[in-house]
Amino acid sequence: MDKFEYAEISKKYRELVESELDRIASNEAAAIYPTLKDAMFYSLEAGGKRIRPCLMLAVCEMLGGRAEKALPFACALEMIHTYSLIHDDLPCMDDDDMRRGRPSNHKVFGEAMAVLAGDGLLSFAFEHMLSAALESGEKGALLAACEIAKRAGAAGMVTGQAADIEYEGAAVQTEDMLHFIHIHKTADMLSAAVLAGAHIAGADEKTLASLTLYSEKMGLLFQITDDILDYKGDPALMGKTLGKDMEQGKLTYASLLGLEGAELAAKQAAEEALAAISEIPGSGYLAATIENMLVRSN
Amino acid sequence: MDKFEYAEISKKYRELVESELDRIASNEAAAIYPTLKDAMFYSLEAGGKRIRPCLMLAVCEMLGGRAEKALPFACALEMIHTYSLIHDDLPCMDDDDMRRGRPSNHKVFGEAMAVLAGDGLLSFAFEHMLSAALESGEKGALLAACEIAKRAGAAGMVTGQAADIEYEGAAVQTEDMLHFIHIHKTADMLSAAVLAGAHIAGADEKTLASLTLYSEKMGLLFQITDDILDYKGDPALMGKTLGKDMEQGKLTYASLLGLEGAELAAKQAAEEALAAISEIPGSGYLAATIENMLVRSN
Repeated sequence: MDKFEYAEISKKYRELVESELDRIASNEAAAIYPTLKDAMFYSLEAGGKRIRPCLMLAVCEMLGGRAEKALPFACALEMIHTYSLIHDDLPCMDDDDMRRGRPSNHKVFGEAMAVLAGDGLLSFAFEHMLSAALESGEKGALLAACEIAKRAGAAGMVTGQAADIEYEGAAVQTEDMLHFIHIHKTADMLSAAVLAGAHIAGADEKTLASLTLYSEKMGLLFQITDDILDYKGDPALMGKTLGKDMEQGKLTYASLLGLEGAELAAKQAAEEALAAISEIPGSGYLAATIENMLVRSN
Repeated sequence: MDKFEYAEISKKYRELVESELDRIASNEAAAIYPTLKDAMFYSLEAGGKRIRPCLMLAVCEMLGGRAEKALPFACALEMIHTYSLIHDDLPCMDDDDMRRGRPSNHKVFGEAMAVLAGDGLLSFAFEHMLSAALESGEKGALLAACEIAKRAGAAGMVTGQAADIEYEGAAVQTEDMLHFIHIHKTADMLSAAVLAGAHIAGADEKTLASLTLYSEKMGLLFQITDDILDYKGDPALMGKTLGKDMEQGKLTYASLLGLEGAELAAKQAAEEALAAISEIPGSGYLAATIENMLVRSN
């Protein structure tokens, strides 16, 4: 799959997700207190690449499932991703004023409402998935919701955030430490996307194992390229305050391995991700996602 | 049911919940990052009356269900209740230093970890319910999880919190406003407990309607007596900083209706709650819960 085809398909999935999020905002979210709803959807509809929902839809279709069946779970995952960004930007966390090229949630709605907007999005994600699971009555839907709960949850993404905060500015910074943080903080949410799509399509154990490895390596690649971009990137490209990680003395692949070392590690993670899916038929979009991630840091 | 029998049965349910929470802490929560886990269970195991899980188990048994089947959902609801207290106590929210007679979560673990402890508990609650629903394969389990997601979520408890924050110190304070806040902030979580217990026992529509009314009136009663206690109560009884609501200019039933008016409103809410369940056989524990709430404010 060349980069033009990849961009086209990504656009198709992204538009599917965006229009479903618009539908949710105008119908299902009607009973939410107005200011809270504004705060939730301010961040949810702020754009972004929608990489997780796109991946989920692509995996589901690749394995013979219908994208429409994965859509409620794709939107829910984007809600969870968005809540994590809102809480992460809070003054007591990373203290970021900008996100996706706009003032971050608490700069617009205040800290208290930003905390609640995050809580609201996380709860709403589960409400949305549970309704879909109840409606479909399929075991795959329940397995998808379970996978997302686990990977996004206390032993997944939130554990990664907690480790990240505790290790910030630690005297000894090791690759093991950095790896633990990002397996949970970044890779778990990408794994959630990939594996939920597979559950909805009714994937077998062997395919699930290959996709688990693929998504973990993708998570590593994603984080390394993010660190490289933070190190040398263009603020317009990133849409957030740059060089911040460095300034705060945060452990990053760039600070730990140096720029060249980080680029090498990214290349290796990409190769391992591609190898993991080499035997899955029709995995061109998944391969192109990896290639696209690798290119963005060059 | 006299108050001794009520206390005995409550103790039995509470011990069931406490020991299940201990089991969860030592087994299922093993993969959570240690500091995060400490922060989550510091607040979750801080005691409290466990009124919501006790109610859920009681309703389930009253309608012929097994308490063991409701137990994962009862623990999940307590996790959700606890996360809401942790976030509510944050400096940017109510800024409370004490909770259940101990320093509040952020005073012990810091603000960032307290935000994550709340996020972790909320996620873990859904993970726990989804595992239970997957294991049981019963529709009632999924309905219970849905009810909890909706009542605790963006259009439920979180909407109540958002309205509460926005109306704080408002120039015009009306009973309608106060009612909207507490229907969501307080009543929704009690309704979640009662209705989830009913779903797990496979309750019919008529019983669900009666229990909905019962739990909504209970929510009102609970909030009014809480306001009365804040107004005149004993710090040792409450375990939190007292008179705080008044001091912050928060809308309460005591400030709006005066002490006598609030006591009258509490009595009326109690009567309406009791009337709602008068035709449900074996509802003695539910009636005693109402009487116990009413007494605590006298």
